[in-house]
Amino acid sequence: MQDLNRLSINQLTTRDRWSLPEAVDGYARAGVGAMAVWWEKLREIGAERAARVIRDAGMAVSGYCVGGMMTARDPVDWRRRLADNRRMVDEAAAIGSSCLVAIGGGLDAGDRDLGAARRRALDGFAELLPRVRDAGIVLALEPLHPMLCATRSVLCTLRQANDWCDALGGGPEVGIAVDTYNVWWDPELDSQIERAAGRIAAYHVSDWLPDTCDLRFDRGMPGDGVVDLRRIAERVTAAGYRGRHEVEILSSRWWREDPDAVVATVVERFRSAM
Amino acid sequence: MQDLNRLSINQLTTRDRWSLPEAVDGYARAGVGAMAVWWEKLREIGAERAARVIRDAGMAVSGYCVGGMMTARDPVDWRRRLADNRRMVDEAAAIGSSCLVAIGGGLDAGDRDLGAARRRALDGFAELLPRVRDAGIVLALEPLHPMLCATRSVLCTLRQANDWCDALGGGPEVGIAVDTYNVWWDPELDSQIERAAGRIAAYHVSDWLPDTCDLRFDRGMPGDGVVDLRRIAERVTAAGYRGRHEVEILSSRWWREDPDAVVATVVERFRSAM
Repeated sequence: MQDLNRLSINQLTTRDRWSLPEAVDGYARAGVGAMAVWWEKLREIGAERAARVIRDAGMAVSGYCVGGMMTARDPVDWRRRLADNRRMVDEAAAIGSSCLVAIGGGLDAGDRDLGAARRRALDGFAELLPRVRDAGIVLALEPLHPMLCATRSVLCTLRQANDWCDALGGGPEVGIAVDTYNVWWDPELDSQIERAAGRIAAYHVSDWLPDTCDLRFDRGMPGDGVVDLRRIAERVTAAGYRGRHEVEILSSRWWREDPDAVVATVVERFRSAM
Repeated sequence: MQDLNRLSINQLTTRDRWSLPEAVDGYARAGVGAMAVWWEKLREIGAERAARVIRDAGMAVSGYCVGGMMTARDPVDWRRRLADNRRMVDEAAAIGSSCLVAIGGGLDAGDRDLGAARRRALDGFAELLPRVRDAGIVLALEPLHPMLCATRSVLCTLRQANDWCDALGGGPEVGIAVDTYNVWWDPELDSQIERAAGRIAAYHVSDWLPDTCDLRFDRGMPGDGVVDLRRIAERVTAAGYRGRHEVEILSSRWWREDPDAVVATVVERFRSAM
């Protein structure tokens, strides 16, 4: 991948050192014209100011993260979480994001009924859809790695994401976020990407380190791990995806580095390894 | 689950403190009449002595672990690994094990071609089959958790294990080891267990801890985690499985404990949580 116009950086990649305005500046300085926004960073300054900062920099927004997580057993908690998702839809639209990225949510403490948790998560998405449609964005369902099933996402595979898209009516307002780190291992990767043709709403890139030692914050810089990233990029392109290739690295190791150096490395790896 | 005759303990559960003869004694002392044997423990004393120790104690053997791992790119390495698998088949038969449990193997250093690694692993199983047939045992393919794809097993899901059984001819000498820790998250769990009816050769039990902090050695004692173990036991039973329920806990935390206390806990949890 050579054309820098296809690169986006998810601001989680520079989570610890940069606010939203600082990330906008930092990415623009490196010639990167698109980013994904993290909700906590947005709410630090409010949607209005965030939208202005992003617009003034001419920055495109490849995604707003992260919605979903409607697995609570308590109906009051579940409703509260749905309301927050509606707010996120509005925030995504306000900053010009093409999609709200959404994950499944984990299991409540003591909950062993995975099937019921999945049904609640899917019900939540169904309730959210009218707002998504009104806002003119796409709800991008992102399956996370199965090792995060208990804590972050009962939505675990591309097959399941495709099934949920179908269950939600299969309209243009529902899509899938394909994240290399979460799906690279899947024996059905090719066939489920093919099945997702026309509904891939985001493409996230990071690498799997063979000596990984943390379930959430040890993602690898593209090229440092075992994933054949170019091959997956070819498959999502073959499935019709024309959007940004968004580098998203949740990594304690990279969070300790100078963010400008991290961004420079991302740009170099975008050219050499993606 | 109440009938202690259905319980087996995989000796990895007491890995750090007990040799094979000590494990045989320890399990028998607790009234447990079946175990799974780990190859390194067997080779410390040799197959002949191992067989005698097990037979003298009247211990049933629910599995011999762990074969497979034929993913090497170097043909010499691959052949050497196949030869070692043939030796394992003979060792499994020698100790009266009903099956050789086998995993996929990881990726060689620098290998990013997951598809080719999977083909080599499957080719290895195909080459191994005549020996398995001659020995009168079952080759039990065990999908490991996807988080171990790079390092331990390119065989990641029950669907894939079922596909591989089909690809290997679907005869009675090929089966599947269902391990709750590895498969509990799978959206296709029920349908793929049902599809595996008649070919489930082993059933391994441990729990997923929501605060797990290690990819290999932080499995939970049954009842301490989020997995609905009784539900999965019902499904494998509904699929015709009548063998042992083998507790297999790879855990740095439990390895530090007194093995007799660990075994007593396993027996208690077998009654209360499985």
